[in-house]
Amino acid sequence: MADETHIAEYEDDNIFAKILRGEIPATKLYEDDDVIAIMDVMPQAPGHVLVIPRKPSRNLLDADPVVVGKAMAVVQKMAQAVKAAFKADGVFIAQFNEPAAGQTVFHLHFHVIPRHEGVDLKRHSGVMEESAVLSANAEKIREHL
Amino acid sequence: MADETHIAEYEDDNIFAKILRGEIPATKLYEDDDVIAIMDVMPQAPGHVLVIPRKPSRNLLDADPVVVGKAMAVVQKMAQAVKAAFKADGVFIAQFNEPAAGQTVFHLHFHVIPRHEGVDLKRHSGVMEESAVLSANAEKIREHL
Repeated sequence: MADETHIAEYEDDNIFAKILRGEIPATKLYEDDDVIAIMDVMPQAPGHVLVIPRKPSRNLLDADPVVVGKAMAVVQKMAQAVKAAFKADGVFIAQFNEPAAGQTVFHLHFHVIPRHEGVDLKRHSGVMEESAVLSANAEKIREHL
Repeated sequence: MADETHIAEYEDDNIFAKILRGEIPATKLYEDDDVIAIMDVMPQAPGHVLVIPRKPSRNLLDADPVVVGKAMAVVQKMAQAVKAAFKADGVFIAQFNEPAAGQTVFHLHFHVIPRHEGVDLKRHSGVMEESAVLSANAEKIREHL
């Protein structure tokens, strides 16, 4: 199938690769040998979390299925935690493959976004959230991990 | 954590439970002991696929993590297949938990939606697609499984 998907190669200068290498900071919620979870710096709602496998892949299309499974276990935990932490009415999970689907950082990641009735999501890649707000929201989530 | 998530109980009269029991038809792409994949009858784009674990859960919040992992392996295969089948530029994966997040059928499921540059998604729960169109699109996908 690989010959028909035509996806570009992984490039290790993307922002999540830099975070994984510790070259730039992130507000970390969770990490293990395979996966990290961090606060999205441009949240579409308070408590917007990103789950990022350590193993490089551009997106789901070229990912190691074992890694995908490990990431999803963390996605599920984060979904439960953000729902509790923000007393959310629901949780939206999204994963974008390639720019046509909304992907902007080319290292596999999953969005976990708390939803409240009647509150629209903010646009992604909008405004950078203040660090203090991200830290406070991260602390709320950690209480439910 | 369960005491804080406050999600409703699973009810087995939902449409996916009926499909899983064979009480109503669906255009099936794939099935194994744990998971089925079918064409969404109200596609947001041609080739919109649903991946549905057999084991009952309302959504990701109350799902068995093992089942989630098995479902994601199928989600990944379907993403690769729809990208190839529809020469898509990208693939959008979405999973909605509770009505506030867009969930309308209360049995865990994952959306796999091919995306093309410049083509907006149709609204979900919009128009029912013709059976012949779904069958033709399913055949395209099966060629890439």
